[in-house]
Amino acid sequence: MNDSQLRQVGASLVELPTISGANGNLSVAEIEKQLPFVARRYFLVYDVPTGETRGNHAHRVQHQYLTCVRGSCHVTVENGHQRAELTLDSPSLGLYVPPMIWSTQSVYSADAVLLVLSSDVYDESDYIRNYDEFLALTGEK
Amino acid sequence: MNDSQLRQVGASLVELPTISGANGNLSVAEIEKQLPFVARRYFLVYDVPTGETRGNHAHRVQHQYLTCVRGSCHVTVENGHQRAELTLDSPSLGLYVPPMIWSTQSVYSADAVLLVLSSDVYDESDYIRNYDEFLALTGEK
Repeated sequence: MNDSQLRQVGASLVELPTISGANGNLSVAEIEKQLPFVARRYFLVYDVPTGETRGNHAHRVQHQYLTCVRGSCHVTVENGHQRAELTLDSPSLGLYVPPMIWSTQSVYSADAVLLVLSSDVYDESDYIRNYDEFLALTGEK
Repeated sequence: MNDSQLRQVGASLVELPTISGANGNLSVAEIEKQLPFVARRYFLVYDVPTGETRGNHAHRVQHQYLTCVRGSCHVTVENGHQRAELTLDSPSLGLYVPPMIWSTQSVYSADAVLLVLSSDVYDESDYIRNYDEFLALTGEK
């Protein structure tokens, strides 16, 4: 993964402080440090068959934060001009995806659990699900 | 697990809507529906050796929400008067723990990943780590 490529797209890696001890590991993120927004929604994606792709949309105004808390998955992000990709494979690693970034997740390991935090509740009108519309809105059509 | 016992203590079970499809499962929680507070912090607990116990504290004003997103763990909650316990074993199941509830987590499965959402950033003065102090504050000492 390449943080500078991610930053060119507008996304950014988040590395979480981790406290490791004899009684286990703890990775933590908080607002104004690792978390760039307050979370009003979360969702978990799991039991994704190998070869399936999820995501394939952008958000108009909502911010998202993705972390693969178990197993691993592959994420691509693009802003209509540039694309970057990375593998999320640690509970201590997150990806901040601001609005107007097209994102796709794939290559889920069998045990993968993807946690997504969102800045607001579900609103279908916030989703851009048509790639051509996304390119038009980002000025690349 | 017994929701009425949990409610007597002051905690409550949260069951998440889950969308299952050929491309995997998605469980979702959002504020004012399943999430009783906005999350300003999250942490993940993992690789906890069998036999270890974590938690063992209460919060003065912060709210917490616990969900075992992979594997399972055992949670006890008590308010100084009553105690309840349950096993968290599904990404579609959460436990809301309001302030002034003593909580302990144990019997982590080897693959367990416990996700905790908090209503505010870390503040050591919010923690009650002495059980006798907790009982005194809840009027049971």
